[in-house]
Amino acid sequence: MSTRLADVTAPPRPRAPAEPDFGRALEEVEAALGEFLDAQARDPADRCLPPLVDVLREFVRDGKRLRPLFCHCGWLAAGGDPAGAPVARVGAALELFHSFALIHDDVMDGSHLRRGRPSMHRRLAARYHGDDREAAARFGVNAAILLGDLCLAWADEMLLTAGVDDDDLRRAAPVLHAMRSEVMVGQYLDLGGEWTEDVLDRAWRALRLKTAGYTVERPLQIGAALAGGGPDLLRWCTAYGRPLGEAFQLRDDLLGVFGEPGTIGKSVLDDLREGKQTVLMALTWRRARPGQREVIRRLHGDPDLDADGAARLRAVISDTGAEDAVGELIEARAREALAALEAADLPATARRACAELVHQATRRTR
Amino acid sequence: MSTRLADVTAPPRPRAPAEPDFGRALEEVEAALGEFLDAQARDPADRCLPPLVDVLREFVRDGKRLRPLFCHCGWLAAGGDPAGAPVARVGAALELFHSFALIHDDVMDGSHLRRGRPSMHRRLAARYHGDDREAAARFGVNAAILLGDLCLAWADEMLLTAGVDDDDLRRAAPVLHAMRSEVMVGQYLDLGGEWTEDVLDRAWRALRLKTAGYTVERPLQIGAALAGGGPDLLRWCTAYGRPLGEAFQLRDDLLGVFGEPGTIGKSVLDDLREGKQTVLMALTWRRARPGQREVIRRLHGDPDLDADGAARLRAVISDTGAEDAVGELIEARAREALAALEAADLPATARRACAELVHQATRRTR
Repeated sequence: MSTRLADVTAPPRPRAPAEPDFGRALEEVEAALGEFLDAQARDPADRCLPPLVDVLREFVRDGKRLRPLFCHCGWLAAGGDPAGAPVARVGAALELFHSFALIHDDVMDGSHLRRGRPSMHRRLAARYHGDDREAAARFGVNAAILLGDLCLAWADEMLLTAGVDDDDLRRAAPVLHAMRSEVMVGQYLDLGGEWTEDVLDRAWRALRLKTAGYTVERPLQIGAALAGGGPDLLRWCTAYGRPLGEAFQLRDDLLGVFGEPGTIGKSVLDDLREGKQTVLMALTWRRARPGQREVIRRLHGDPDLDADGAARLRAVISDTGAEDAVGELIEARAREALAALEAADLPATARRACAELVHQATRRTR
Repeated sequence: MSTRLADVTAPPRPRAPAEPDFGRALEEVEAALGEFLDAQARDPADRCLPPLVDVLREFVRDGKRLRPLFCHCGWLAAGGDPAGAPVARVGAALELFHSFALIHDDVMDGSHLRRGRPSMHRRLAARYHGDDREAAARFGVNAAILLGDLCLAWADEMLLTAGVDDDDLRRAAPVLHAMRSEVMVGQYLDLGGEWTEDVLDRAWRALRLKTAGYTVERPLQIGAALAGGGPDLLRWCTAYGRPLGEAFQLRDDLLGVFGEPGTIGKSVLDDLREGKQTVLMALTWRRARPGQREVIRRLHGDPDLDADGAARLRAVISDTGAEDAVGELIEARAREALAALEAADLPATARRACAELVHQATRRTR
């Protein structure tokens, strides 16, 4: 699971997008995150906790804050005050939730890198007391499961203590609850299995649940609901957010296979080694001739895949036309999001912010 | 992580304790759990979810409902109406949270059995589409991580939708948040490491966080806070609940090594094979002579430990006097809990319920 807003823009930026509209909002999110983690370390359940909070603070630091950003846009769309404090704290809670999702995702995938640095289970393995390397690796995985759990619980705690009005919380909570179930179910679908004809259907369902909804549509709706947005606005969040979220993830599928290793923050072999049954790969499979399917069966998901093998897989993805097809899907979805934006009656700041995000997703290079 | 209230009583009972005081309360907890899971399956995020809810329903069915029970006692202690509906739903949310904890605990320990039946990752491995057994096992573990995550998120959703008054929720939430952090930190301490002089200290901290607080003290406090209990009553919950929780877990340590396999719901070799650094084992280590320490280093935590090896370890535990020492610790804590109960000014139903629970913990055979 990953979405790389900064990576799909030109030129690529090392940190979160810092457009004038977003800069202050993101600063408030950082402050809220920092305050919450500081408070957890200041009054810890046990003295082992503060060093773990430090590890988490480091891990959280690198995020691109997509979900807080979309939450902020939804808040603006519903006419919320751009300097509203609760929305920043709710955005920070979404970011903490995202840390949970990434930590567990890397455990499940056995990923070594996240955002160009060691994944959480590798960071934690280094904290094992003892020389047994196998025991240290097991410790790292188990500790990462627990630290992910803690992030999930803390995200909820942060939301409940964000100073949100009871009525606003009651309006936003169902969206948040749906989002959490969806991302977990999407991750489940994403665990994959053998190559069968229904893989493409499963890949689309996973993409919609674990990325399109989770990254764009639901954070938008949460922000909108917090600022008093009604059913019409929540439906608009879907009309604009779902195609945009799909475009992001489809782009991510492409970058995971064809991207620049230095830019995407992980080895460009990872997705292929993990055998991720993305929409890109499922489209490839569906279009592949028997000989090409044999290449996929043999090389895709091979943990020892080398550069030659990856090149062969990339050739299959391109030769089947799947690469181009995904490019066209991205274009179509960007147009769809833009059309929804143009049709909507939004405050000027919200319109500018939402247009900027579509722009960033479409003005991409790789 | 496990506590076995029913198992430390005479005679052992196959299901939750069904004393007249508790029967109706537990029925309401069952109903609330069932309703919540039914609702999740009725309007699922994806069609893959209802079968997963069925697996979860099966898994949850076997629980002993300790936490809902103590939550109910805390509610009674604060003068709550025995037929109060929100407390049963909150108790059910605690039970769902406990399912999360058990599912992840079994993943981390690699346990095959839980409550005498396959652990969640083994149940889910059977749902893998394909013949590759290694891939199926990996799928089972990853799916169990996700289903545990879902239980954690749903426990929170259940609490927020339990119909609890905003003021009551605000009073109970800090206790719940503390409980969640504590159990995760306690689990972290319980991951263990090599045998060093500080293992006993770590074992005590883990026991207090992940069992005494989580199983008894915090659920009591949550129930008390929900019924309007103030700081004095919450302090009483600690005075009564902490020693009782410690007694439960110490008893569990003993049963994990010396218990009847048919009664404790897992192999009596599991704790020894997993190398759990319990207070019992840490006391053994502290008292052991060099030769005995060598036996512990070699056999404790050996995944292939056989009956002979287990017998040698048990002999070391007994010979060092650690077994008897833990028995005495249990007695002392039971007396402490009883003294706290006698000193308290509680409603008659609450006093009866709390006395019954101490009684069950002390009138034990094995």
